[in-house]
Amino acid sequence: MNTLKIGSTSNASAAAGAVANTIREEGIAELQAIGPKAVNQAVKSIAIARGYVAPSGLDLFFVPSFVDVEIGGETKTALRFTVRSRTPVTSLRPRTRKGTTKEETAAEQSWEDI
Amino acid sequence: MNTLKIGSTSNASAAAGAVANTIREEGIAELQAIGPKAVNQAVKSIAIARGYVAPSGLDLFFVPSFVDVEIGGETKTALRFTVRSRTPVTSLRPRTRKGTTKEETAAEQSWEDI
Repeated sequence: MNTLKIGSTSNASAAAGAVANTIREEGIAELQAIGPKAVNQAVKSIAIARGYVAPSGLDLFFVPSFVDVEIGGETKTALRFTVRSRTPVTSLRPRTRKGTTKEETAAEQSWEDI
Repeated sequence: MNTLKIGSTSNASAAAGAVANTIREEGIAELQAIGPKAVNQAVKSIAIARGYVAPSGLDLFFVPSFVDVEIGGETKTALRFTVRSRTPVTSLRPRTRKGTTKEETAAEQSWEDI
């Protein structure tokens, strides 16, 4: 599983799209952030991603944990966010396969399908 | 349910104790934070609270959402964290009732009981 690294200047909506995509493909997503601004963007991206996948019946939650990462020889403590859905993701996979890669479009499409 | 308001200077360990206590008493806790530093402290407090209640078999997760709050006549967007356990909390209540109010002590006690 790839870890999405969120920076202080990361766009929360774009990160949310990546989270939603990863959840649909793998059923789980992992974000990593160092520093208050990056953590703030990570939390916002998950709140936004919840809206992206909610039309597909997914209910995202996350579990925070501390993790040591080495950056430029220095050890820093990052926050890691493991994102999962409280409802099963598997049943929705066929729907996500037909669409485009753009998450927002996919979410809108599934609304129109209903 | 009381909402725990987390500020930028809130002590993450103290907030974690409050979260753990609220989860044990009510099965659910709610945190609210405005601004990156406060959000960072809120996330850290939940990561720490996970450790406090893990010995009791609880597995905390949270769901973030945006909420508008009015502070001094100004409307600001806060982040709300709804914290729950993936494992049932009810069965563990008797154990938490006998202890002190200090969360860390309670968590240590339950280790010693095993």
